[in-house]
Amino acid sequence: MFKILHKNKRARRGEFVTVHGTIQTPVFMNVGTLAAIKGAVSAMDLKEIGCQVELSNTYHLHLRPGDEVIKELGGLRSFMNWDGPVLTDSGGFQVFSLAGLRKIKEEGVSFRSHIDGHEIFMGPEESMRIQSNLASTIAMAFDECVENPAPYEYVKESCARTYRWLKRCREEMERLNALPDTINKSQLLFGINQGGTYDDLRIEHMKLIAGLDLPGYAIGGLAVGESHEEMYHILDMVEPYAPEDRPRYLMGVGTPANIIESVARGIDFFDCVMASRNARHGFIFTRHGTMNMMNEKYARDTLPLDPDCRCPTCRNYTRAYIRHLFKAGEMLAMRLCVLHNLYFYNELTARIRRAIEEDRFDTFREENVEKLSRRL
Amino acid sequence: MFKILHKNKRARRGEFVTVHGTIQTPVFMNVGTLAAIKGAVSAMDLKEIGCQVELSNTYHLHLRPGDEVIKELGGLRSFMNWDGPVLTDSGGFQVFSLAGLRKIKEEGVSFRSHIDGHEIFMGPEESMRIQSNLASTIAMAFDECVENPAPYEYVKESCARTYRWLKRCREEMERLNALPDTINKSQLLFGINQGGTYDDLRIEHMKLIAGLDLPGYAIGGLAVGESHEEMYHILDMVEPYAPEDRPRYLMGVGTPANIIESVARGIDFFDCVMASRNARHGFIFTRHGTMNMMNEKYARDTLPLDPDCRCPTCRNYTRAYIRHLFKAGEMLAMRLCVLHNLYFYNELTARIRRAIEEDRFDTFREENVEKLSRRL
Repeated sequence: MFKILHKNKRARRGEFVTVHGTIQTPVFMNVGTLAAIKGAVSAMDLKEIGCQVELSNTYHLHLRPGDEVIKELGGLRSFMNWDGPVLTDSGGFQVFSLAGLRKIKEEGVSFRSHIDGHEIFMGPEESMRIQSNLASTIAMAFDECVENPAPYEYVKESCARTYRWLKRCREEMERLNALPDTINKSQLLFGINQGGTYDDLRIEHMKLIAGLDLPGYAIGGLAVGESHEEMYHILDMVEPYAPEDRPRYLMGVGTPANIIESVARGIDFFDCVMASRNARHGFIFTRHGTMNMMNEKYARDTLPLDPDCRCPTCRNYTRAYIRHLFKAGEMLAMRLCVLHNLYFYNELTARIRRAIEEDRFDTFREENVEKLSRRL
Repeated sequence: MFKILHKNKRARRGEFVTVHGTIQTPVFMNVGTLAAIKGAVSAMDLKEIGCQVELSNTYHLHLRPGDEVIKELGGLRSFMNWDGPVLTDSGGFQVFSLAGLRKIKEEGVSFRSHIDGHEIFMGPEESMRIQSNLASTIAMAFDECVENPAPYEYVKESCARTYRWLKRCREEMERLNALPDTINKSQLLFGINQGGTYDDLRIEHMKLIAGLDLPGYAIGGLAVGESHEEMYHILDMVEPYAPEDRPRYLMGVGTPANIIESVARGIDFFDCVMASRNARHGFIFTRHGTMNMMNEKYARDTLPLDPDCRCPTCRNYTRAYIRHLFKAGEMLAMRLCVLHNLYFYNELTARIRRAIEEDRFDTFREENVEKLSRRL
């Protein structure tokens, strides 16, 4: 299913074939938490900005409109009118970050809805059933995401439990994929590596989950408190133990520089809300560095956000217009900037793919890591 | 410039040629107050939903970003990347409805900005200069818009002043159109009929302004407190005195039924924020009546908003999805509904035009006035 087309040292140019389309890697997945991209961006728009994979959140959709409603309406892809691949997270991260008053047991987690406070129980089986109802292309394993730093003993126990949960996830998904009324009977399960910032726990856990022969592996519990250097160090430690012939997904990461540095460490899949969230606050990514569109200096600037960009926003609007829209409180400001930033991220991974294909990823990395972080 | 192609009793099917394109009438103008349509809709989108004329607000743009900034950036059409005709209002309506602490003198009006309270003066000359900077296709005369009902003597004096202001507007626009650095040297001035709900004042004022031989005439000061029946009565009274060979614009009106009834009374141009404002609150117009998308009954409804509609929203999304977006607080809900409602209004006037061309406007009116107002 996953084929590595070319390598530059540890950087991989791959292809992941799914029932909903082939994904060219490295890939940046575009986040549509509640089956819509925040900033008034639709699935129709995603087509125009080079999105390959849409990512939605299990916890949020379970609460609103409810995964059973979505199943009845033909699954998430049909519901939001997106015909490409979709990845759903497991709900684990939100349960541990958003929801209140949680109690972890071997069976799963009890917590309160962040909307109305009602008590919900979610364990590996519940997460798989919800994701099966959503009928995503790729489902993520239900895990515990521990904030960094956390005590060694706690992380160790948590890893052991996450591994037991992973086996239950796999079993439940096999059962669900065999049911006659399951929408996507080829749903794929990705396992998630945990272990906090402890090298030995990370490595041991990765070895364990690699043994389950899953179609893909994620590295979770990073970008949750530790420094970039610690994150890169963990990637360096864990990568040799991640199956070479399976895609690797670094969850919730990150800046353009983070993505380039992680591709250099053998990562293939990314997702991050930063692209769209920053856009909604007027913070723009370009090939030359970052810009704050609230800045007075753009008030009469007739250039597009990035003169080298071919996104719908840059092909049609000036910095002066976009700054005006923000200052005037017009929602259109957010939409135009979200379109631009997502296009930028999608295009960034396309440029990374070409650089790997053409054996010049090292040069690309040198030229861009510092430049893309520069404040203009 | 204005050609009547066909008539059905008093209903007119016309063509208004401007330097920025030919307008097919009856026409509904789409309101983009601050050079953007509220609900994250752009000029690019207007192209796709059948918009012929974009309408922006002089008062708002004078405050933000400032009409001089817009002039420097090539005028409103260039600023917002809309290449069709644009109509700007005079600022008068907003000065009298939004702005605080006003003082009316013969020269014009002193008032306070609704944003930061600073004092502004606007008279006929100021309004024309701002609209010339915005470089709209059609500029509206600076008038006093009196709320209904108002005392007879007050309305009479106000009408006389509005007429004196109109002559100053015309003079100032002639001067501005002749200046070398004016962007649109063919800017057109429409006069505005006032007179409250008093037949004699309305008629007298219309006769006066008709004498100025302007390229178009608006009827203002309606839909500001009086009943629909009073409004139709005023139209019936005034219409015989409005120049037959000039377009007639009923400002700020209205519901689909209002538009049909007003076309029946010889009106050619319309604008109203109701289409987009209602959309942002989930209130939808369809060929079969109106719908409230917050209603629980749409939670699992897989039909488009209107199965007979060809707008981008109805071609791609279900009622269930749109209701979910509203319930989840996603901005995309507003965008999809604004696109639909504006398309509906643009399409409604297109259907009216065909009905007049085919000599069946009476039947169209009978079939639709009640139906379009029905709550589904």
